[in-house]
Amino acid sequence: MLLVVGSVALDSVETPFGRADNVLGGSGTFFSAAASLLTPVQLVGVVGSDYPVDQLEPLARRGVDLAGLERAEGSSFRWRGRYRHDLNSAETIETHLGVFSHFSPKIPAQFKSAPFVFLANIDPRLQLDVLQQVNKPKLVACDTMNFWIESRRSDLLELLKHVDLITLNDGEARQLTEKFNLVQAARWILERGPRHVIIKKGEHGAFMFTRDTIFFAPAYPLESVFDPTGAGDSFAGGFMGYLARTGDLSERNMRRAMIYGAALGSFAVEKFSVQRLLEVSPEDVKSRVMAFQQLVAFEAENA
Amino acid sequence: MLLVVGSVALDSVETPFGRADNVLGGSGTFFSAAASLLTPVQLVGVVGSDYPVDQLEPLARRGVDLAGLERAEGSSFRWRGRYRHDLNSAETIETHLGVFSHFSPKIPAQFKSAPFVFLANIDPRLQLDVLQQVNKPKLVACDTMNFWIESRRSDLLELLKHVDLITLNDGEARQLTEKFNLVQAARWILERGPRHVIIKKGEHGAFMFTRDTIFFAPAYPLESVFDPTGAGDSFAGGFMGYLARTGDLSERNMRRAMIYGAALGSFAVEKFSVQRLLEVSPEDVKSRVMAFQQLVAFEAENA
Repeated sequence: MLLVVGSVALDSVETPFGRADNVLGGSGTFFSAAASLLTPVQLVGVVGSDYPVDQLEPLARRGVDLAGLERAEGSSFRWRGRYRHDLNSAETIETHLGVFSHFSPKIPAQFKSAPFVFLANIDPRLQLDVLQQVNKPKLVACDTMNFWIESRRSDLLELLKHVDLITLNDGEARQLTEKFNLVQAARWILERGPRHVIIKKGEHGAFMFTRDTIFFAPAYPLESVFDPTGAGDSFAGGFMGYLARTGDLSERNMRRAMIYGAALGSFAVEKFSVQRLLEVSPEDVKSRVMAFQQLVAFEAENA
Repeated sequence: MLLVVGSVALDSVETPFGRADNVLGGSGTFFSAAASLLTPVQLVGVVGSDYPVDQLEPLARRGVDLAGLERAEGSSFRWRGRYRHDLNSAETIETHLGVFSHFSPKIPAQFKSAPFVFLANIDPRLQLDVLQQVNKPKLVACDTMNFWIESRRSDLLELLKHVDLITLNDGEARQLTEKFNLVQAARWILERGPRHVIIKKGEHGAFMFTRDTIFFAPAYPLESVFDPTGAGDSFAGGFMGYLARTGDLSERNMRRAMIYGAALGSFAVEKFSVQRLLEVSPEDVKSRVMAFQQLVAFEAENA
């Protein structure tokens, strides 16, 4: 079982290829849509009274337990953003936190024993609070962002002591560690708690660092990237979903989980919102994982 | 045997870690320093009367035949550049072409039958001219740059019809094809002649495209990158050097050649100029190729 605590939002996105208004978004939503292709998911988050909860029905049908989705008085978290030609960086036009600004995650009793826990990108104080509520998970991973690195640095450093794994993007890793070099940045973080550090580089792939090993998962070279929103959270969903499904924390299996993450991230960007993630089947995921194999396979020695 | 036609220059480079003045540089030089770790090289280029030719002695000792290195009256090609914290892009402070501006490559008779030919980054008219002088090589590859894409577009398109393979970086591929997406850019180029297109992304690795396959070679995650100058040419040297040594143009072997390219590129950036390339041994190269294997190896299926 896989528990995720994160945002459930409404996104309005403009890309060079079109626009979408008030569509499903948020880290918890993308994570759940991706992970539920691989394993049952328990989602904890909050939405306002204006949220089109019926649109979450396809997620529920696929095994996302929404019992932890609080409905609060007020408006939902809304994000409006734009991507220009360089699809690698979003320009935020508007962020409206709404009920999310008073979010205080309450983990339902039946969720507290989930062996795999993902603390998506929320206030590190809330992430720490969630850890007080759960019963000795097998693996706890967290994500974060520039805003928390700036405003909640000491809480984030405290959090690092209590998680097994952190995912963050290259810019965030540099900001957190004040190291430009990513190998040095990863080492800095590994010295502060997590046994695994995943540094995501968007269209340039992702690294997984341990004290002794480095693994690199490329991003899949798609012929058209439609909307990059949620790629990182979908990556995390694929990664954690695969780990939760297999329950195997060996280096070998975690490498495979990285490829599942990359596969789910690559599907996420093919359409707006969680649309593509809801279309693909477990067989599609498997085919893409095989395609990653084709992409990087080589024999170091001439047989 | 591997023939390369390219620039032999003097570089002055400033990085956040130090500076070096009037050190060996140029595409032909980096290419030769890298390739000669794997196979004998024939270098064609031009230097001015001020060039410290004795400094090329270590290259000659390693099997770089300098019989095609013309010494002309005048000053050598000099480049002065700077890298800031983001080591991925050089800022050119000064370029002095000197004798290079009148370079007209003359391939010595004993070089004309080289089965592997690399046309490093020079005027596409000269690259075409070289092809008139050689005898049916087994594989011809070329490199190019933004300056020629702008000023010699039609010659470059003509050249594409006559080469088997092109290497260029992501920005150049986009500029040449007017496609932002690299898969689309590669397809555009593949339709115009070459059977292989290698798109280099600096610290983010390199793709090799054919009509039917995509291979990705990551860049090696170094803990310190000292000076990125010449990484692309060293990549090309490692790639072509491995192909020339093995003579095998199968997809399988070309993938391995990509990793040799990535390995040589990764050594090049560890010190100024060709210094590190001259220090490492063939065994060091092999170890790094094995390290690449460790970096990307995963099993798609749970055994």
